[in-house]
Amino acid sequence: MALTYEILKKSGKSRLGKLYTKHGVVDTPAFMPVGTCGTVKAMMPESVAATGAQILLGNTYHLMLRPGSELVAKLGGLHKFMNWDKPILTDSGGFQVMSLTGLRKLTEDGVTFSSHIDGKKYFLSPEESMRIQYNLDSNITMALDECTPFPSTHEEAKVSMERSMRWAKRSKEAFIDRDGYGIFGIQQGNIYKDLREYSAEKLKEIGFDGYAIGGLAVGEGQEKMFEVLDYAPEQLPTDKPRYLMGVGRPDDIVGAVLRGVDMFDCVMPTRSGRTSQAFTKYGTVNIRNARHKEDPRPLEEGCTCPLCTHYSRAYIHHLQKCNEVLAVMLLTWHNVAYYQRLMQGLRQALAEDKLQEFTTQFYADQARGDIEEL
Amino acid sequence: MALTYEILKKSGKSRLGKLYTKHGVVDTPAFMPVGTCGTVKAMMPESVAATGAQILLGNTYHLMLRPGSELVAKLGGLHKFMNWDKPILTDSGGFQVMSLTGLRKLTEDGVTFSSHIDGKKYFLSPEESMRIQYNLDSNITMALDECTPFPSTHEEAKVSMERSMRWAKRSKEAFIDRDGYGIFGIQQGNIYKDLREYSAEKLKEIGFDGYAIGGLAVGEGQEKMFEVLDYAPEQLPTDKPRYLMGVGRPDDIVGAVLRGVDMFDCVMPTRSGRTSQAFTKYGTVNIRNARHKEDPRPLEEGCTCPLCTHYSRAYIHHLQKCNEVLAVMLLTWHNVAYYQRLMQGLRQALAEDKLQEFTTQFYADQARGDIEEL
Repeated sequence: MALTYEILKKSGKSRLGKLYTKHGVVDTPAFMPVGTCGTVKAMMPESVAATGAQILLGNTYHLMLRPGSELVAKLGGLHKFMNWDKPILTDSGGFQVMSLTGLRKLTEDGVTFSSHIDGKKYFLSPEESMRIQYNLDSNITMALDECTPFPSTHEEAKVSMERSMRWAKRSKEAFIDRDGYGIFGIQQGNIYKDLREYSAEKLKEIGFDGYAIGGLAVGEGQEKMFEVLDYAPEQLPTDKPRYLMGVGRPDDIVGAVLRGVDMFDCVMPTRSGRTSQAFTKYGTVNIRNARHKEDPRPLEEGCTCPLCTHYSRAYIHHLQKCNEVLAVMLLTWHNVAYYQRLMQGLRQALAEDKLQEFTTQFYADQARGDIEEL
Repeated sequence: MALTYEILKKSGKSRLGKLYTKHGVVDTPAFMPVGTCGTVKAMMPESVAATGAQILLGNTYHLMLRPGSELVAKLGGLHKFMNWDKPILTDSGGFQVMSLTGLRKLTEDGVTFSSHIDGKKYFLSPEESMRIQYNLDSNITMALDECTPFPSTHEEAKVSMERSMRWAKRSKEAFIDRDGYGIFGIQQGNIYKDLREYSAEKLKEIGFDGYAIGGLAVGEGQEKMFEVLDYAPEQLPTDKPRYLMGVGRPDDIVGAVLRGVDMFDCVMPTRSGRTSQAFTKYGTVNIRNARHKEDPRPLEEGCTCPLCTHYSRAYIHHLQKCNEVLAVMLLTWHNVAYYQRLMQGLRQALAEDKLQEFTTQFYADQARGDIEEL
């Protein structure tokens, strides 16, 4: 196989695994920080690696517009371009393009759209998405699909999913197989179990290196998402990685790991770093809040990121008030570090057969919240 | 003395020296990056130190407004607050306050002004400036002065300078002497040699640990500035450090070192990092320029900063086009590193009696410019 996935251990539906790529190993369950335009916003790649992240996500849509995949290829591929020598997964561009309501035209062949930057016309098809992701030198290529909104009727979801499955086949056919590189198919079907089942069967027929669960985290809420995750992962092959796209908050991730998901990506930790929201063991903390103004304590006791090691809450609050870039840099770093610590905790708990203790403690800590004075 | 300054070597008017403070040694000629609000914008303090910077400048005006010097004192002083354990020099707040045209009222006692942030009223006097800088735990406190604009008449400059000298005396009297801490007086007198001479004599009578040349780099241009620097440094004591405030571009600094100046500060390297302008051996480079779009070369061959070590011009150009924070982070780092490299070069040339060769090469390289294709 182009990519090798090894499952080391199982606990209930949860799995501890290793995914081998040309650019290194990814321990799963894994969280992929998002590097939309060839950079994890406000972080040096060395810092991203220092948090324990082993794989990044790059966005085909953004990179095809700027700087263009041909230029990235000419300059040696995305790893070299952005100075990240570990694995990279790229999405297909489909999700962003489909979000360009009014600026796109969808046919069986593909989708014509106008750039949100300068209005310039582009065309994206399964074949074109494969070509772009090949240019980017992505270790994990995602098949082009359509992600239906929530809510969608059964009929809408069915029509869309069936096209996505035809596109999945074309994606696989256009994908150029290489050692240490692979392609993931994406299950669709919205919140409809029968459509999810059909989609999974189609993807298995085609055969992929991994399987993503698409079309969730689009506004349906955690309860409905977990209802789908109660069955969707098991509809997919047991010996391949399962990737829940665009998820999520820490408790979304823990809940999804318990339901058999292995990989995640989300802009949450990086975006929150730009809006003063920090993730901690005891839930989220908004550092702009006036209660931090004179607080000499670190944001999170025991966290080894630079923010928590070297600075007081009062300092970060001050930086925020002054709109200093360093606030964004440090909060982003902390959040990415928090997410990696969470994944490391999940992996260790799986390795030591302590997943239940881990998750019980996780929920208790999150429920406690960030208490200033007891 | 509270601060010790050692001159190791002289070459013409230029001096190689060491300034000893409680928080460490500063090799001179030295350039101080500016950390206005308790952060060198877009840089981690570890990164600032990695460029070779041995001392930072903090702004009394900004810090007295936010977060307030009492809070900084309560949290252990500015070094601890901002995680910078090397020397810090703070300005007196005078320069910024005097720039608040229409928002300030000047009397012999001091100046009442309204904050540019929320309009709140503040009062700054020599005694108050000393108190604030003491709270900040600044290693080098600056006397409160008034900086006259350019152009100013002889009479205007005289009246202002004389008040500044009375304030210098009050500053010195209010300064609390401690081992490893010192206070610098500031020479004023605009572009008038007799006023500069009078000011220098007054300052010497009072007695300071170092002497700043104030009132330059306010729009008079390099030629006029150098005319003043042809005599001003020599009006000041030979055995104390001389600090040219708010200067400047690389060729300003080289010209001033040749005229006997030991210390500098300027927002140029950090501010330029936010406007895509990079300083290099071969002059300035604006990375937004389209000629960099596909350029695989580093910004500056031989520079050891992360930008030049790990990235192409094409990548930095791309980051700029996408308004990515990393562009600001990397360009700022490069610029601060460039300035430190320049100072290191000047110090080494002084140590090896090669100052003339160094400056000849410097001017030749700067004149050559950044050539894309020869």
